Amino acid sequence: MTKITVLGSGSWGTVLANLLVENGHHVLLWGRGEKEVQEINTQHTNRHYLPESTLRPQLKATTDLQAAIAGTDAILFVVPTKAIRSVAQQVAQQLTKVPELKPIIITATKGLEQHTNARISEIISHEIAANLRQGVVVLSGPSHAEEVIKDDITTLTVASKDVPSANWVQKIFMNDHFRLYTNNDVTGVEVGAALKNVIAIGAGIVHGLDYGDNAKAALMTRGLAEMTRMGVSLGADPLTFSGLSGLGDLIVTCTSVHSRNWRAGNALGQGRKLPEILADMGMAVEGVYTAKTAHDLSIAQNIDMPISESIYKVLYEDADLKTEVINIMKRKGQSENELMRPRLSGESE
Amino acid sequence: MTKITVLGSGSWGTVLANLLVENGHHVLLWGRGEKEVQEINTQHTNRHYLPESTLRPQLKATTDLQAAIAGTDAILFVVPTKAIRSVAQQVAQQLTKVPELKPIIITATKGLEQHTNARISEIISHEIAANLRQGVVVLSGPSHAEEVIKDDITTLTVASKDVPSANWVQKIFMNDHFRLYTNNDVTGVEVGAALKNVIAIGAGIVHGLDYGDNAKAALMTRGLAEMTRMGVSLGADPLTFSGLSGLGDLIVTCTSVHSRNWRAGNALGQGRKLPEILADMGMAVEGVYTAKTAHDLSIAQNIDMPISESIYKVLYEDADLKTEVINIMKRKGQSENELMRPRLSGESE
Repeated sequence: MTKITVLGSGSWGTVLANLLVENGHHVLLWGRGEKEVQEINTQHTNRHYLPESTLRPQLKATTDLQAAIAGTDAILFVVPTKAIRSVAQQVAQQLTKVPELKPIIITATKGLEQHTNARISEIISHEIAANLRQGVVVLSGPSHAEEVIKDDITTLTVASKDVPSANWVQKIFMNDHFRLYTNNDVTGVEVGAALKNVIAIGAGIVHGLDYGDNAKAALMTRGLAEMTRMGVSLGADPLTFSGLSGLGDLIVTCTSVHSRNWRAGNALGQGRKLPEILADMGMAVEGVYTAKTAHDLSIAQNIDMPISESIYKVLYEDADLKTEVINIMKRKGQSENELMRPRLSGESE
Repeated sequence: MTKITVLGSGSWGTVLANLLVENGHHVLLWGRGEKEVQEINTQHTNRHYLPESTLRPQLKATTDLQAAIAGTDAILFVVPTKAIRSVAQQVAQQLTKVPELKPIIITATKGLEQHTNARISEIISHEIAANLRQGVVVLSGPSHAEEVIKDDITTLTVASKDVPSANWVQKIFMNDHFRLYTNNDVTGVEVGAALKNVIAIGAGIVHGLDYGDNAKAALMTRGLAEMTRMGVSLGADPLTFSGLSGLGDLIVTCTSVHSRNWRAGNALGQGRKLPEILADMGMAVEGVYTAKTAHDLSIAQNIDMPISESIYKVLYEDADLKTEVINIMKRKGQSENELMRPRLSGESE
């Protein structure tokens, strides 16, 4: 029986842990909140994140990281981006005590670290030395937790430079309704997963301001183009952005009521203020955080990202929403291919 | 003052005609129904197609094709795909009487002709000899008529091999909320516009069968991949499928309640029968028609289009919906890039 440790008892972490139990594995879910962990163990629910779902009784949770990791075959990170580095450091400390364990490391967190601009798998690979683990594998794709727990069909991408680790992860997660496909473009998968949350805030803003589906489709189309431009500048394969972890995840995040990033943007469009929105949500809204990194990356890589930049200005510089949407939608430029092709920042349109 | 003839008084034809009036042009709308034409002229409404809208009083309609074309600078085709060839023949007859007129020809119809597999601009270019006209220009993109008439921001692609004609069309349509971008890949624009209607039927079926947003996003992602594969085999630029007329229009058609193709698919998913659905709709559902052409093209070009093929089987061979959706969603194949890259029909997965 395979033993898997899941770090992070938010909605996605809980649902992935539950799914692994369903697949017959022994799973220990590590969370920070004593009350939440107890609720999972005794009531088989996680009401704050999944108010309508019942979890499998075999799913056990703990607040003790050492116990969570003991004898594990794989460690899945699903903590918010902000917490990834410190949790990875704690994990590394534990693994140093049991150097023979060498688990496979998996991440299902979607974001980019502020200040360093690092991808999640880069942070983890750096903090957990290669001699303490197998490969680092990224799990991504269009996958609202609320649908996965209802056994709705969901397709995902499994990305790693380490093919045996990727294949192993594909095998332990795969079942009749949860379908996984491998991809070796780790950079493309992670950059797409992170940047699409920023575009989803934009799609929400457009809706909140009462624009229609035509405008949203235009925003998403150009959003994917700028995500792709940035990804390619970082070494990604442009084709990855047309796949499940790029286009697929962009669609689901921009068009589904389940998306927190879209909901935060929608509330902004309706005139509410960001701190109030985030407080009400009571969960991480990764796109707000990623917008800052996208802004920094855009400067560092000299890549023009007009939509992400407008959202950055709305979130961090209190720019007027309507002015920014109009800036995005009414861009000059005669030719469509001009707008789609890679363009350097500052180059005239 | 520019004079423009609009052929086809359905929702999109009526809204485009109304928009051209708003832009200060003299517009004559040609329709087949005497009653409808009279309603437009006297009551300034077209209730069958646009129950909630009032048209500009300066918009005039006629059933007389000769009168509609007299002295015109441009003729815009917005009749259903099925009617394009016969209407083009009638227009050619009229233009032969006034060979000095030489109008620009525009098409906003999205489809592919059955049996010939021809694109709309190919049919028109063939039926209206080059000496009777200027260039043929294609207008496409994510543009629900119901939103355009409310002055919601909408972005479109204008495609033509004839640059001056494309630029002229861009100028007459462009205003503050209707934004146009040129593209010289006519094949890519037309193939994308036509094939996305088939995928939208699939998205509707998935919803009607009660699958969630994760499944729909996967279907759309792979749908765009097969549309692109087919387009490239016909000589299109793959980048066009990531633009407004490809991805943009796919998004709007698969995710908006305004889409007839989506609504038809949704009704099928809920267990209703096609003839009944089409009768109730009372408007052309182009995707039903295009599914047949996609099937023929897939054989002719030896390009694998598993999603379109499943929808063809549901529509024309009474295949079981649930079986076909499961076939689509649970495809084997280890690697995502394997599924995305151009693959020949019959090649093993």
